[in-house]
Amino acid sequence: MTVTTPAGFRSAGITVGLKTSGKPDLALVVNDGPAPASAVVFTSNRAQANPILWSRKVAQNGAARAVILNSGGANCFTGDFGYETTRLTAEAVARELASEPQGPVPADVRDDRAERVLVCSTGLIGTGDQSFRDKIVNGVPGLVAALAADDTTAPGAILTTDSVEKTAVHEGDGWTIGAMAKGAGMLAPGLATMLVVITTDAKLDSAALDAALRRATGVSFDRLDSDGCMSTNDQVTLLASGASGVTPDENEFAAALAGVCDSLAAQLQADAEGASHDIDIEVRGAASVDDAVEVARSVARNNLFKAAIFGNDPNWGRVLAAIGTTDAAFDPYAVDVSFNGVRLCHAGAPDRPVEECDLTPRKTHVEIELFAGTFAATVRTNDLTHDYVHENSAYSS
Amino acid sequence: MTVTTPAGFRSAGITVGLKTSGKPDLALVVNDGPAPASAVVFTSNRAQANPILWSRKVAQNGAARAVILNSGGANCFTGDFGYETTRLTAEAVARELASEPQGPVPADVRDDRAERVLVCSTGLIGTGDQSFRDKIVNGVPGLVAALAADDTTAPGAILTTDSVEKTAVHEGDGWTIGAMAKGAGMLAPGLATMLVVITTDAKLDSAALDAALRRATGVSFDRLDSDGCMSTNDQVTLLASGASGVTPDENEFAAALAGVCDSLAAQLQADAEGASHDIDIEVRGAASVDDAVEVARSVARNNLFKAAIFGNDPNWGRVLAAIGTTDAAFDPYAVDVSFNGVRLCHAGAPDRPVEECDLTPRKTHVEIELFAGTFAATVRTNDLTHDYVHENSAYSS
Repeated sequence: MTVTTPAGFRSAGITVGLKTSGKPDLALVVNDGPAPASAVVFTSNRAQANPILWSRKVAQNGAARAVILNSGGANCFTGDFGYETTRLTAEAVARELASEPQGPVPADVRDDRAERVLVCSTGLIGTGDQSFRDKIVNGVPGLVAALAADDTTAPGAILTTDSVEKTAVHEGDGWTIGAMAKGAGMLAPGLATMLVVITTDAKLDSAALDAALRRATGVSFDRLDSDGCMSTNDQVTLLASGASGVTPDENEFAAALAGVCDSLAAQLQADAEGASHDIDIEVRGAASVDDAVEVARSVARNNLFKAAIFGNDPNWGRVLAAIGTTDAAFDPYAVDVSFNGVRLCHAGAPDRPVEECDLTPRKTHVEIELFAGTFAATVRTNDLTHDYVHENSAYSS
Repeated sequence: MTVTTPAGFRSAGITVGLKTSGKPDLALVVNDGPAPASAVVFTSNRAQANPILWSRKVAQNGAARAVILNSGGANCFTGDFGYETTRLTAEAVARELASEPQGPVPADVRDDRAERVLVCSTGLIGTGDQSFRDKIVNGVPGLVAALAADDTTAPGAILTTDSVEKTAVHEGDGWTIGAMAKGAGMLAPGLATMLVVITTDAKLDSAALDAALRRATGVSFDRLDSDGCMSTNDQVTLLASGASGVTPDENEFAAALAGVCDSLAAQLQADAEGASHDIDIEVRGAASVDDAVEVARSVARNNLFKAAIFGNDPNWGRVLAAIGTTDAAFDPYAVDVSFNGVRLCHAGAPDRPVEECDLTPRKTHVEIELFAGTFAATVRTNDLTHDYVHENSAYSS
């Protein structure tokens, strides 16, 4: 179980024919309370899909009742027709939930209006025609009928080019967190990322959830930069049911949530399209956390560096060429650069022989010591490989 | 002829053993006046090679007497030893020029001090040991002895992974411009680019040359962004001899210089490492030129877009996802996107069928109409290919 591990949630995943592969492509997570609350963060890309435009409004309406997610089409840049598809999807979910003969959700908090239903879509931009709409809207009754408190099918129904399901669970003291995620390409979040649904039975209000969620995503998904390409459909949804009756310490909950997000980010990195190395770029001795992130990201986005790692070449010169393009405070001729624990550059000159460095393991650690302060940050990225090019060119689609 | 097409210049290219291939690797261009003047622009990368650190000082000393260029090693991040190598190189050139029994340069303008000798290096970062120094310094006498006013060997001696020589000539009214360039990777200039030497026999002072050069590079090399990776060794040198005795109209000269730089930028694009498409990203209807360049560059640096072009896939969704990350003034749901003349996206929704678009030609044109103003700019880039990954991973080195 994943998003249904915490009490108070049901989920389902079914196949409605959006994917040519015939795999599951429509998922639903429902919050049955008794004390529903929610928080959502969205992509900071100005080009936003219709489900993002819709869900931004829903997020302002109070606790979300449910989130429906489809793969097999992003419904992005599909015009007014696409927005109407999203609205009709939410409406269908609301209608079906309202018609449930008797749900576990208490009558006094139950709000089955479409304005309480978040929508997420993922897939090809520009996809969202009449057939797409029909398959989703007509699939909703079956989806709601399949809802179960011990469901295991939802995580699979949100995948696109992902090769594995991504889930995480945290057991607190009397409360739990469950989560599922998808994402394998266009992985360079800004304030949010990919499609993620996190549930908890902790009893927390939406403001507390929001603070904890922004804190967690800021140091996890925001520091995952697989290919520098920010998506139009990123959304992270956090739903709390209050079913445990326990209100955890705020810091304890925030730390647990950050741990769950960090685990999902690592799973996303490990499944990035075509990658052969998971690279953690750790910047230390920075004058600020922002500087550390900027420096690390400049390396994470440098194609020459990424291609060198693919070739198991510890090319520290490309690291220095990359960080030299930033505005961060440091002296480029004073930094140290280490690959997998071997210091290859010291004080602006070659140090240990590159032959001492073994880059054959998939897990790769690059450490950059700036000698400019006491702050640090790590950005996760991947190498640039033949398979990445192949999977993202038309040859694979 | 190229840099020696204008009167008042000699050049040479020889082999001193820096390249394992045994190809020519050391070049020299000498300005014999009679009215020498010069202007230089440098990489804006804060990580700068020793020859850049040296040449920045030379550029402040008045008209440069000569520029010596080596391939086979960048002499970047090689510490104080590397800087001393650069100084010794300039000193050797100065000494040999001073000892020429009788040169064509008039005695009253002849300045053979090392402080008048620009140095450029290109190759692997971190390369610049004792052997590197010895080969260059010991090679200078033979290089100076090989100087000729009808030389054709210099352009070949500055190449690294380039497959062809890059040269350009402009014939003015009584004056000429000649130029040579190298560059095939790490092509994302900021204020300058690659190694370029441009000569002219026009009679212009250094201030006029500087103004014309910055104007020309700003709309040519600065808008070439093959792989988003800025080099540590970029330098564009413009030398004027005054040998024609003609002082051209300032605007006419600036336009001619811009044409030469534009031709070289196109040649660099066409020879970019592993590329199979030369992509011109034209942004129109922008609120400012800066906006147009920012929008175009966001597409030029988007790996998913670049991989799609490699696969002949007119993936306009990735264009919109890329431009949505910029701060430029426009409505993402109002733009038009065309590939090779076929409008695939109109007003935030799909327009013509992608099947109408043929991306098999190497030359690719992407037009983005922002409907936000009257300004336009074009950024040149390349696709992301298997060969790019191969050439830049250790497998090829």
